[in-house]
Amino acid sequence: MDLNSDLGEGYGRWALGDDAALLGLVTSANVACGFHAGDPATIDRTVRTAVERGVSVGAQVSYPDLVGFGRREIDVEPADLTADVLYQLGALEAFARAAGDRVRYVKPHGALYNRIARDPVQAAAVVDAIRRYDPALPLLTLPGSAAMEAAREAGVPAVGEGFADRAYTADGRLVSRREPGAVLQDPGQVAARAVLMATERRVESVDGTEVEVGVRSLCVHGDTPGAVDLARKVRAALKEAGVTLEPFA
Amino acid sequence: MDLNSDLGEGYGRWALGDDAALLGLVTSANVACGFHAGDPATIDRTVRTAVERGVSVGAQVSYPDLVGFGRREIDVEPADLTADVLYQLGALEAFARAAGDRVRYVKPHGALYNRIARDPVQAAAVVDAIRRYDPALPLLTLPGSAAMEAAREAGVPAVGEGFADRAYTADGRLVSRREPGAVLQDPGQVAARAVLMATERRVESVDGTEVEVGVRSLCVHGDTPGAVDLARKVRAALKEAGVTLEPFA
Amino acid sequence: MDLNSDLGEGYGRWALGDDAALLGLVTSANVACGFHAGDPATIDRTVRTAVERGVSVGAQVSYPDLVGFGRREIDVEPADLTADVLYQLGALEAFARAAGDRVRYVKPHGALYNRIARDPVQAAAVVDAIRRYDPALPLLTLPGSAAMEAAREAGVPAVGEGFADRAYTADGRLVSRREPGAVLQDPGQVAARAVLMATERRVESVDGTEVEVGVRSLCVHGDTPGAVDLARKVRAALKEAGVTLEPFA
Amino acid sequence: MDLNSDLGEGYGRWALGDDAALLGLVTSANVACGFHAGDPATIDRTVRTAVERGVSVGAQVSYPDLVGFGRREIDVEPADLTADVLYQLGALEAFARAAGDRVRYVKPHGALYNRIARDPVQAAAVVDAIRRYDPALPLLTLPGSAAMEAAREAGVPAVGEGFADRAYTADGRLVSRREPGAVLQDPGQVAARAVLMATERRVESVDGTEVEVGVRSLCVHGDTPGAVDLARKVRAALKEAGVTLEPFA
Repeated sequence: MDLNSDLGEGYGRWALGDDAALLGLVTSANVACGFHAGDPATIDRTVRTAVERGVSVGAQVSYPDLVGFGRREIDVEPADLTADVLYQLGALEAFARAAGDRVRYVKPHGALYNRIARDPVQAAAVVDAIRRYDPALPLLTLPGSAAMEAAREAGVPAVGEGFADRAYTADGRLVSRREPGAVLQDPGQVAARAVLMATERRVESVDGTEVEVGVRSLCVHGDTPGAVDLARKVRAALKEAGVTLEPFA
Repeated sequence: MDLNSDLGEGYGRWALGDDAALLGLVTSANVACGFHAGDPATIDRTVRTAVERGVSVGAQVSYPDLVGFGRREIDVEPADLTADVLYQLGALEAFARAAGDRVRYVKPHGALYNRIARDPVQAAAVVDAIRRYDPALPLLTLPGSAAMEAAREAGVPAVGEGFADRAYTADGRLVSRREPGAVLQDPGQVAARAVLMATERRVESVDGTEVEVGVRSLCVHGDTPGAVDLARKVRAALKEAGVTLEPFA
Repeated sequence: MDLNSDLGEGYGRWALGDDAALLGLVTSANVACGFHAGDPATIDRTVRTAVERGVSVGAQVSYPDLVGFGRREIDVEPADLTADVLYQLGALEAFARAAGDRVRYVKPHGALYNRIARDPVQAAAVVDAIRRYDPALPLLTLPGSAAMEAAREAGVPAVGEGFADRAYTADGRLVSRREPGAVLQDPGQVAARAVLMATERRVESVDGTEVEVGVRSLCVHGDTPGAVDLARKVRAALKEAGVTLEPFA
Repeated sequence: MDLNSDLGEGYGRWALGDDAALLGLVTSANVACGFHAGDPATIDRTVRTAVERGVSVGAQVSYPDLVGFGRREIDVEPADLTADVLYQLGALEAFARAAGDRVRYVKPHGALYNRIARDPVQAAAVVDAIRRYDPALPLLTLPGSAAMEAAREAGVPAVGEGFADRAYTADGRLVSRREPGAVLQDPGQVAARAVLMATERRVESVDGTEVEVGVRSLCVHGDTPGAVDLARKVRAALKEAGVTLEPFA
């Protein structure tokens, strides 16, 4: 199983998240590419450190929206969105290459991630960028999403990710954050769910049934002290359960 | 001999220059990379067309300064400047790669071009980005500049460029634009100088002597109707003189 | 009747539209405020010239989207949108004040204009900025829009504008640009419609009936040579019909 | 005596400094205006809170340089710099006005502050913006600087500020940060210097002599926990010495 987290999300003078701690816990780093966060010098440091520590580097591509941190949907035309993704992919690749490695996957950020989970037009635009750049580069996204479907149609590999701290519906989808109980807080419960997802590719849904989830990576957060602790517990529980942690890409 | 020109310098809704005309005249396109001009969709179109027409694609890297069009010097720290250049190089490369080609050289833009002609610190920072990215990638710059010296020290190939419409001093430097007569207007005179530079690597200086100029590329401008006409005359004169026009890279 | 047009929509090195021609034709200038176009120096020149020529200055506020020219809807939170509008209003006011005048109205731009015509939440957020800044400042918008309704509820004056070159439905709404025949091309027809709107506050709808339109300003475009000619014809026809052209604010 | 500090220097998702603590200590808030920090929503919150707590609001204008946090000198043309300052002044004023107050002074930020302390051309450009906006608005700057001289020539009031934690030369200038001992760390010593500056307008220079300093405001920093503690000690020492703390503007 792979553990992924968002990294390099500072910008110039502004820092965000405990990258040093996370780089000791995860196997894949979704590195911000400059459109929602991540100035070039921050990207450079982040990628170098990730490569040094054997963490796989992925492109955390976003809408162009620094002030909104990429959390607001934008009605970008498909051709523009494809170009935006190509631009970010290439920019990150330069640092990976300079560090002796390469970009190993793409994970869209924030509002773009959510939008392409349900919008086939923007999903196809993102996938088209990957196809034009390198059709063997995997897209990390939600199982069953429009993005996964678009990748399948384009012949781009798609990898499912799961969230051990999120509630799932009985048909294997995430419960919306607007619903009560959508985010789980108890570290023990979250760690146990991570183990179930990693070892049996199943998760307990909100109605108590266990549903299958096709995940090869689990996402952990790192922008609060509590989040890093939680990530640490998840990692420890996975290790204890005999799960091998390694990059999916 | 190579003819190079700045291309793709629009930004979103804003167009600039007659790219269509220039792509029929030049052999190398210095494509804006988004920091002074060139949004991703504009880069995509520009690179595709250049590749289709057999024009060599170079990275026109810049200070981050859209509002100032990269024409204002910025006291960027060396490590930040290196990262800025890597970022732009990689971003452009994605489009070149998607178009079936690659970035073939680097030509800094505007204030950065002028700054690294005389400032060894910023020059070394730019060259370091090239060295880390691909030490075989040539830097297109002024003969005798600090940039050329920095490239030589780093083992990065440097290629000299000349300006047929600019006055030269007796030691082979450009006369400052602030001096009267620094820019030549007469198309016949400019074309004749281009031929002399291309065939004999010499140019007549302001004191009437001929000086050697180590140039493998001539820069032509395209952002005014008159400039395109001038470029056309220069190209025609070179052809007539039997000069083969081909990309230097 | 008032004639309004978008002005000052260049950005740094990039020019757009024939501001000089338009400032001789219109009575109100919707000046870009920096979020979709309009760098500070361009705003300065535009506002000075407008004030010198007796043209009323309005704030053409926008989503923060230079690369998309404010033409893409963004899901901005209401409090952020209110702050974005306040920021732009104040920025423009500084130039109006320095030119001896003040901002006399607000006309949102592009995607924001369209969004608040139908979305009461973003409409209320824009109106709230005006109310907090100066509740006597008019909002120029579509008659019958959510924006007009939000202004009415907040006690902010709203002024309706019309488009002589756009087709109207039988209930006085604009026909969507996606429909055939939405934009009228014939200068004589457009000028005649402008006169009917100005003199009788009526317009012929697509089904041939005349409908009332509560407009105190007509919008003319200027970013193509043909558009300026059309604006000139509209102005001449209005003059000939005895319509007094004067700022509504 | 006045105590001023930089506030509102976050940007969107990124926070910076302990604004809540500082607003309880200072009498003047230099609020970032969006060019080096300070998105509109952050400005809105910061200005509202400052006004509620009776803290005077000043415009912390900057070069346009988010990624460099305004810490890099830019060779902006004077007319552009004047327009940049007008733009920021007006933007901040909108929030002050919406909060029932107004902008009471201007204090340039970072590299612009340092540049106009020695460069009369950029100094005059900044002062010209103030003069055009409101010639009664004070400029807060270094005693004896080019900025102070430019203000005097333009008839704009200039107010001197001092730094209790910085070493001074025998002629009353700041020792460069590049010199050893330029920044004082001992809280007791810093507090004692603040008291001497506030009560006698004098400071002990590096060669042991006391020099006069024409200051009406002392600058305290707040972007580290230690800095807030130091500000607290300075404030307490001034109170104890019977110094009345109140806004200079």
